[in-house]
Formats: sequence, C-alpha cells, structure tokens
Amino acid sequence: MSQRGLILINTGNGKGKTTAALGVAFRAIGQGLTVSVIQFFKGKWKTGEMEAARQLGLELTPMGKGFTWESKNLEEDKELMRRAWSVASEKILSGKYDLVILDELNYVLGYGYLSVDEVIRCLQSRPSHVHVVLTGRNAPDEIISIADCVTEMRDIKHPYRRGIAAQKGIDF
Amino acid sequence: MSQRGLILINTGNGKGKTTAALGVAFRAIGQGLTVSVIQFFKGKWKTGEMEAARQLGLELTPMGKGFTWESKNLEEDKELMRRAWSVASEKILSGKYDLVILDELNYVLGYGYLSVDEVIRCLQSRPSHVHVVLTGRNAPDEIISIADCVTEMRDIKHPYRRGIAAQKGIDF
Repeated sequence: MSQRGLILINTGNGKGKTTAALGVAFRAIGQGLTVSVIQFFKGKWKTGEMEAARQLGLELTPMGKGFTWESKNLEEDKELMRRAWSVASEKILSGKYDLVILDELNYVLGYGYLSVDEVIRCLQSRPSHVHVVLTGRNAPDEIISIADCVTEMRDIKHPYRRGIAAQKGIDF
Repeated sequence: MSQRGLILINTGNGKGKTTAALGVAFRAIGQGLTVSVIQFFKGKWKTGEMEAARQLGLELTPMGKGFTWESKNLEEDKELMRRAWSVASEKILSGKYDLVILDELNYVLGYGYLSVDEVIRCLQSRPSHVHVVLTGRNAPDEIISIADCVTEMRDIKHPYRRGIAAQKGIDF
C-alpha cells in the first residue's frame, strides 16, 4: 500500500469539525504516528480534550494567545496569527510529524488574517508523508481545490438554538 | 449550569461521523465521564482507534460479529443486530454510563434491521444524565426528530474517488 500524505478539510457551520480532527489524531496515535495540533484560537479547547490529549501524549500547541473575537486591534491579531502560522509551517515542513492538525485555520484564512497563497505554498512543499488537517468554517476555495478530502459539517439541528445549555464532556 | 443528557446524531455520506463521535468520547473521558461505545459493524474499527481506546480506558463493545455486507442471510443478520441492540439498550438504561456511542446504528435502522420505535422508546426512557451519540448514514427521520443535535457530514471531495489508497493512521 502506498503511503502518501493527505490534505483533509473539515468545514461547514455544524458541529464535529474539531472533534472529527481529534478522532483522526486519536486513530493516528493508536497507529504509532506522531501528531501535532496547532490551535489558532485562544481558549477554544477546553478541559476535556486537553486532559485526554495529555493522557495520549498528543502534542498540543495553543497559539492564539490574546486573540479573541472581541479584539479591537486588527493589526495585533494579524501579527499573532502570523506568529502562529510561522510555528505551524515549521512543524509541517520539518517532516518530524506524520500528522499536523491546524485547528480553526480555515476561519483565520477566511477572515484574511493570513495569506492563502503562503499557506498553499507550504502545504505543497511539505515532505510527502505528512498529513495535514485544516478545520474551521469558511474554508477558502483555493484551499479546497488543493485538498484530497473535504467534508462539510452541516448544522441540521443544534441544541443552543433550542435553549439547551452546553454540556460538560460533550461540548467542552 | 444544568446537566442534561443529549441525543446527538452524526449522519450524511461524508467522512467524520465516527471520528467526530470518537472526538466526543475523547473529550468526555478527559472530563472524567464514563463512556461506552457499541460498534454495530464487524471490523469497522481498525488498529488505530482500538489501540488509542485501550490507552484511554474507553470501553469498546464490538457487536457485529459475523455481520457483513456480503451476508446472504437477512434473518441471521437481523438476529445479530437484535442481540447487539439488547446489549446497547441495557447499557443506556443502566445509568452507569454518562455517554453511550452507538456506532453505525443509523445505518442499521435505515436498512430496517431494527425497529426504530423500539430504539426511540429506549432513548426516551433513559436516565436523564445519559448522552447518546448515533452515527451512520441515512438516519431515519423519526430519530432526527427526537435528537437534540444533528450534523450532516457531506462528502465534498473524497480521496478514494480520485484513486488514492486508504492511509494508515488516517483512514484506519
């Protein structure tokens, strides 16, 4: 069987984009692959996955320190995202990881915080065994066009809209 | 914050239905919840997730022994699914688990191997703290109507259609 690094995208407005990426990380670690997760949002990951990640020895890099949706300083946010991308691209290009998960990068790209061309150049020049998963809403068309596998998570029914509180262990 | 057991459904023709459920299991275990996964298909889960599940202490019950798509014996398959459902429903109703994942149950229901009414009766009479996740294509409308959260995983682009082999640690 030929091993070949894939680019996978989980996008759409529904739940399961990050959790499906976590499930892939889980599977990959079980197969002995080395996995790194770069989190582009501050505080996006909660206690549950942080603790399970620790138990499984999954490398987590939270990069969005200080970056929040309430921020008024666009330039500062862009600089934070550029720094996060610099760390992420180095990991991708190093060849040290079999799987790199870029959590919420689609969203960051969709909002123009980073150059889509620069991200594509990095993905296309990565070592051939490296799998990359990009999650987040609004994946740009250019990224979709170079991906091997794209799944749209569509929100058919969502508990928050029905007045049900977020649940420990399920939502965080 | 009110704790309340949710019914979550991952359906659709795309990737990520089972992996997103695995991600939820991962998060739940990290929060100290007790989780049980019932697998309705034989051999559906591969080395990767079996091994990670073992590392995390996730209870996995493979129930589809002998049930394959090549089977010619419909009655035998129905009997296997009835036995699997009997084990699953007991776990759900016992209240011992905070989260029960019924992997591929939608598919089984969609093909008429089990009574949708019976499954709904069990879900509706479960202890109130129990979360249940149902995965698989073709979730029946009656199940969707009682669910709290429904996500459709839509296949936008898939590597197999493009002649790329399944990849270790990503697909299995």
